[in-house]
Amino acid sequence: MFKINDNYQKLPGSYLFSTIAKKVNAYQEANPEKNLIRLGIGDVTQPIAPAIIDALHGAVDEMGHAETFHGYAPDLGYEFLRSAIAKNDYQARGCDISPDEIFVSDGAKSDSANIQEIFSVENKIAVCDPVYPVYVDSNVMAGRTGTYDPATEMWSDVIYMPCTKENNFVPEFPKQVPDMIYLCLPNNPTGTTLTKDQLQMWVDYANKVGAVILYDGAYEAYISEDNVAHTIYECEGARTCAIELKSFSKNAGFTGVRLGYTVVPKDLKCDDVALHGMWARRHGTKFNGAPYIVQRAGEAVYSDAGKAQLKEQVAYYMKNAAAIKNGLQEAGYEVFGGVNAPYIWLKTPDQMTSWQFFDYLLETANVVGTPGSGFGPSGEGYFRLTAFGTYENTLAALERIKAM
Amino acid sequence: MFKINDNYQKLPGSYLFSTIAKKVNAYQEANPEKNLIRLGIGDVTQPIAPAIIDALHGAVDEMGHAETFHGYAPDLGYEFLRSAIAKNDYQARGCDISPDEIFVSDGAKSDSANIQEIFSVENKIAVCDPVYPVYVDSNVMAGRTGTYDPATEMWSDVIYMPCTKENNFVPEFPKQVPDMIYLCLPNNPTGTTLTKDQLQMWVDYANKVGAVILYDGAYEAYISEDNVAHTIYECEGARTCAIELKSFSKNAGFTGVRLGYTVVPKDLKCDDVALHGMWARRHGTKFNGAPYIVQRAGEAVYSDAGKAQLKEQVAYYMKNAAAIKNGLQEAGYEVFGGVNAPYIWLKTPDQMTSWQFFDYLLETANVVGTPGSGFGPSGEGYFRLTAFGTYENTLAALERIKAM
Repeated sequence: MFKINDNYQKLPGSYLFSTIAKKVNAYQEANPEKNLIRLGIGDVTQPIAPAIIDALHGAVDEMGHAETFHGYAPDLGYEFLRSAIAKNDYQARGCDISPDEIFVSDGAKSDSANIQEIFSVENKIAVCDPVYPVYVDSNVMAGRTGTYDPATEMWSDVIYMPCTKENNFVPEFPKQVPDMIYLCLPNNPTGTTLTKDQLQMWVDYANKVGAVILYDGAYEAYISEDNVAHTIYECEGARTCAIELKSFSKNAGFTGVRLGYTVVPKDLKCDDVALHGMWARRHGTKFNGAPYIVQRAGEAVYSDAGKAQLKEQVAYYMKNAAAIKNGLQEAGYEVFGGVNAPYIWLKTPDQMTSWQFFDYLLETANVVGTPGSGFGPSGEGYFRLTAFGTYENTLAALERIKAM
Repeated sequence: MFKINDNYQKLPGSYLFSTIAKKVNAYQEANPEKNLIRLGIGDVTQPIAPAIIDALHGAVDEMGHAETFHGYAPDLGYEFLRSAIAKNDYQARGCDISPDEIFVSDGAKSDSANIQEIFSVENKIAVCDPVYPVYVDSNVMAGRTGTYDPATEMWSDVIYMPCTKENNFVPEFPKQVPDMIYLCLPNNPTGTTLTKDQLQMWVDYANKVGAVILYDGAYEAYISEDNVAHTIYECEGARTCAIELKSFSKNAGFTGVRLGYTVVPKDLKCDDVALHGMWARRHGTKFNGAPYIVQRAGEAVYSDAGKAQLKEQVAYYMKNAAAIKNGLQEAGYEVFGGVNAPYIWLKTPDQMTSWQFFDYLLETANVVGTPGSGFGPSGEGYFRLTAFGTYENTLAALERIKAM
């Protein structure tokens, strides 16, 4: 009789955002007259920018004619897109990353879940706490996290690096030496980030202890402060210790378009084995490329028109972020993030747990947010609101919250 | 110091089609004046059908307006697509498969590589030999295949089921009982298939020994004979033993569009654990859905216009298949497949190895095919040609082969 992967049975509950969706749907069904405002899941609301829509239509037309039809894409992604990424996201910032170190994918969620596959199951992982749940969950499925303690909501073989208001949301070097360090900067869910100097210390640390940094830069486009790195490769020595995961979901609204990429520098090695070759092998064996039309859309992100339109889109969301931040502060909340990221991280009032505040907000204000404890034990007592709603809904939600 | 997944180091050579691409590119660079005809990789050449192009344009327009913009897709895929699949591919054939047993993905290659993840690494796999290399390679990466013997080109913990002209390409029940049985029917690369009665015997066998069948039906649209099942769920008892993997690449030319789906019946269990829930958890945690515009394209495959246009497209390729089959037979080759599949499987002449014939064909006729040994040890001495070229190129390739 065949057996299953028992690690799946260890996962507590369901995936955070699936749980929220079920709860919200149940509430809406029971209260069909209520007009919910969703500031929960990090999904965008602004339409795809015109320059990208044009590129999509153009690529669709190409697919309709034999002379310009495109079948299987090259393993790593189309050269036109990898070159645009290398030039704009790296070389323009003085970072030495070449097109053939870039792997185009169907999104950073897949990459951030799959990247652990090329590492030993004996490696010890370290994560910021709270953080995007996919890092830990994908390692649970792989059998890398030990046993789960429901009381502490922690895994025995995961190194948690608490990021709370007490340490200004700056993770400290852990007591136990990790092999794989997940950093999401600017951070999801706290909306906070590190300065470039602080990040450099992590790069130095990783090189010193022989750890690999898995650097998730999905929110890079929202960085507004000068002393924050836009890529980990701005730090000296990152080519020998860091893999960078990038998304088009937040800078270009591609949550429903699906495109991302991962950078694996050729200098990143375990003894004499280059991780670049391993990831190339995984890509070639277990993935068949992002759609041609979507890769053309990605290219348009880097066109002059695309850049200008997306700058406006990011500014639109950051206006929401400022409005939420200021509004909540006026209403007496303690609020973090929202300066270099589209997320507002608030301390729940009156000692409420994160899920208590979720229910309270849903039922009293009909506003959907995300409970901080869903991102890790140190997220307990916090709550995330996103700036990805429409401006009108964002203001309406604030009015409702103020009236609670 | 972090460690890597050592299983990757066990993989011999590179992924088959990457190797072929490198060899062909090298030959073309050295001989830029030669006009190569590619009947190697199973990539299509006909453009996307008009009904699908219309759907793509329509969906792109939706993405450009806030009122009709689509962000993150539902975990399993959009209801409109899952319903169209359930109705057309299953219920119309009398098979009891519901929309919520269907998981939409970015393609069958990803699914067929990822599906092994939900099973124990201790399971023993059985594969037809020769077969699509992804099944074995993805299990090598997971550490399920033991050690590789370069002399036999076999893995110690893989059960090989030879399919050669000697057994009429019908796999026999293996001596050792397998836990996971990969069946690709119609088969890639041999182009042969089983009758429905023969498939029923495999379903009965799996239910008897407690094995799960991973059934790859990527070439189903090419079935022309009445006694061949279009889905494994036509067989009695398949709901308790089979997962079916389906692709839009070959029936609708989506190799560069990227769409597939996997069926996990809710009756398929290991003790009391339903595999449906496990695959749902993997989908929700490690994947973020196929693009909205691509799912709309998938829906158009099932429209009246889409069906009519794709029927013509399949007929076009099968005309190629017949031409190759007849032409090669006239030229004295021993030829198999090509009746229920777009692949022609030929015995290499003069005791040539598969790679010798690859080089001979490339250099003498400037035609690219795929060496049979790349699909498994029992593929040695065979060679695959695909019917996915244009009709003109297919005829030209045949003339060149006849003149060799």
